[in-house]
Amino acid sequence: MNVHWNEHQEPLGTALTLIHTRQSTTSRFLGEPGPDRAQVETILDAAGAAPDHRRLTPWRLVIVPSEKRHLLAEAFADALSERDPEATEAQRKEASEKAYRGPLLVAAIARLDPALGSVPAQERLLSAGCALQNMLLTAHAMGFGAGLLTGKSIYSKRLRQFFQLDDTEQLLCFMALGAVLRAKPVTSRPSMNDYTTTL
Amino acid sequence: MNVHWNEHQEPLGTALTLIHTRQSTTSRFLGEPGPDRAQVETILDAAGAAPDHRRLTPWRLVIVPSEKRHLLAEAFADALSERDPEATEAQRKEASEKAYRGPLLVAAIARLDPALGSVPAQERLLSAGCALQNMLLTAHAMGFGAGLLTGKSIYSKRLRQFFQLDDTEQLLCFMALGAVLRAKPVTSRPSMNDYTTTL
Repeated sequence: MNVHWNEHQEPLGTALTLIHTRQSTTSRFLGEPGPDRAQVETILDAAGAAPDHRRLTPWRLVIVPSEKRHLLAEAFADALSERDPEATEAQRKEASEKAYRGPLLVAAIARLDPALGSVPAQERLLSAGCALQNMLLTAHAMGFGAGLLTGKSIYSKRLRQFFQLDDTEQLLCFMALGAVLRAKPVTSRPSMNDYTTTL
Repeated sequence: MNVHWNEHQEPLGTALTLIHTRQSTTSRFLGEPGPDRAQVETILDAAGAAPDHRRLTPWRLVIVPSEKRHLLAEAFADALSERDPEATEAQRKEASEKAYRGPLLVAAIARLDPALGSVPAQERLLSAGCALQNMLLTAHAMGFGAGLLTGKSIYSKRLRQFFQLDDTEQLLCFMALGAVLRAKPVTSRPSMNDYTTTL
């Protein structure tokens, strides 16, 4: 693609609208219809355009399809029991519900193996963050809502086993994505002066 | 801003062009003119629209203005000597040159203090990555080039002191930004199937 942004001021306005109107949607408020196969591909392809020092692709994605959600649900329940052996069935059930969030559910995994190349872990996580943002923005441009799901379970042995992580990998989060069933009010956000100083 | 992306398919095309035509520019190939004051504000404001679990703003930015670049240059040279006491003057000079890259140079710093809230370090770094990507995309939409600069120096005591980091903070990278003096050839990128599996 050959683009000359300066000749058309439109791209900047669209970019700013895209960036500033995107909000995370609580995964409970995501539902059908989710993205179709072509839309999933477009959203996930956007991740590949993230900055990637030395081109390691230091992260990977795993789609959890509908027919496997019950297995992830069990893993979430077991992850709770792993850190709290006294968790009740009701608590286990609650923990398991995350597995059913969003018509599209994708796990993001960091690849921290030093053998991949001499890029420190924190830079690899930055690349993963950039990739996730590209996906969130693309989903938003399509009119979908999306949110990142985390929690203590992503550090559990049970989820590590479930996703067959090797010792150098780490679960980062899940991205849940679909139609917004209930929009949340627009929240105010910090702006430059809240987080920027000049030397 | 009130936007209904579905009514205008334009935003998706613009979003995808924005995301996929953005490339990192080697900081040596960035020059004047850089962004003016209003553009700097627009670029840095985009960072505030990143996902931010529990709203910690777990990162901050520091602009290094022209008149302070020579001080950063000294810090880069000293950071080299810190890890290699036998570094020569020529090597110190080379290390110091990074300080002069880009009309706009911004340091990104992670705020990892547990007292800020119960969000693990890796999620904070993901938020920082999302913030950086928003800045890179905004700069690209304006027609500027940008690149992230890292290196061993960002882990040095000398740079920690220079940026007056507290014990819970960590330098992540520098973003250099300006006019593209020499465009690099378009590089191929991984796509969905290179990094995605389905359970």
